[in-house]
Amino acid sequence: MERIGIGAVNAMARDDFVAAFGSVFEHSPWIAADAWAARPFAHVEALHAAMAAAMRAGGGERIYALLNAHPDLAGKAALRGDVTEESQAEQASAGLDRCTAEELARLQSLNATYRDRFGFPFVMAVRGASREDILAALAARTTNTPGVELDRALTEIEKIAHLRLADLVD
Amino acid sequence: MERIGIGAVNAMARDDFVAAFGSVFEHSPWIAADAWAARPFAHVEALHAAMAAAMRAGGGERIYALLNAHPDLAGKAALRGDVTEESQAEQASAGLDRCTAEELARLQSLNATYRDRFGFPFVMAVRGASREDILAALAARTTNTPGVELDRALTEIEKIAHLRLADLVD
Repeated sequence: MERIGIGAVNAMARDDFVAAFGSVFEHSPWIAADAWAARPFAHVEALHAAMAAAMRAGGGERIYALLNAHPDLAGKAALRGDVTEESQAEQASAGLDRCTAEELARLQSLNATYRDRFGFPFVMAVRGASREDILAALAARTTNTPGVELDRALTEIEKIAHLRLADLVD
Repeated sequence: MERIGIGAVNAMARDDFVAAFGSVFEHSPWIAADAWAARPFAHVEALHAAMAAAMRAGGGERIYALLNAHPDLAGKAALRGDVTEESQAEQASAGLDRCTAEELARLQSLNATYRDRFGFPFVMAVRGASREDILAALAARTTNTPGVELDRALTEIEKIAHLRLADLVD
């Protein structure tokens, strides 16, 4: 896909902006809609910062909805291809579509423990990570306090958004 | 109310234990029920630690339900006396039943902002605090990150439980 220059981004009407950036945060186009008001953006980093600020200003219910909009890594939806294009590509880049049966069983069991403990799915910016990295992070993060882990999950969501934006904007 | 010795606590059947300690955590008798399995307790501190451990092991959904079981301080339910006996006494000890109209308006506006931001009500161990302390804490804590504030709220719930237990156990 051709990347857009920041000048063109700043010239976009709200609907076009939401169409272009609505999927930077998983199933949460309201973040792009809210961030649009902060234009013009000096560069892609400023655009990312505005979207992250919109996310954090979104408030409790919308934050938990955003967290819960993320599919389990190598979960049932991912295995049958029923996740966003972006998530599918990210999971594939980490080799999560090529798990052994053993790795799958371990991931699914750890994912369930994590979700029981925190009330939302494990979210991680997996591009560039190995399956081993992911399993280790999942096991380690399950021992965090609920609050530490909530902030960590939001930071991972911001990293994912950063990588997705870099694919879209020049 | 007469306080119970730790020996008598350790001799309690599960149902009696839940009846005695079920309201130590607001509207969440499951915490007493889970903690009972950890008896005998050497002293009241050990009982408190077991209940706090049961709370934290309770998992995401039950943790958010526990948070949301707390009434707003000087909120509508508190003003019409529709909160637990324990909460009513704690709020009264901090003078929250004697707010001026101005203090009430400020508390209710800050409570609403806090709840919008975090998705659960502001919880604080208010025994011994002044209305001014409470308003200052509420304003300050609203600026926390969601994760920092979640851990802080759980710590306050543990403090409330500690004070309630000290009223019950010798």
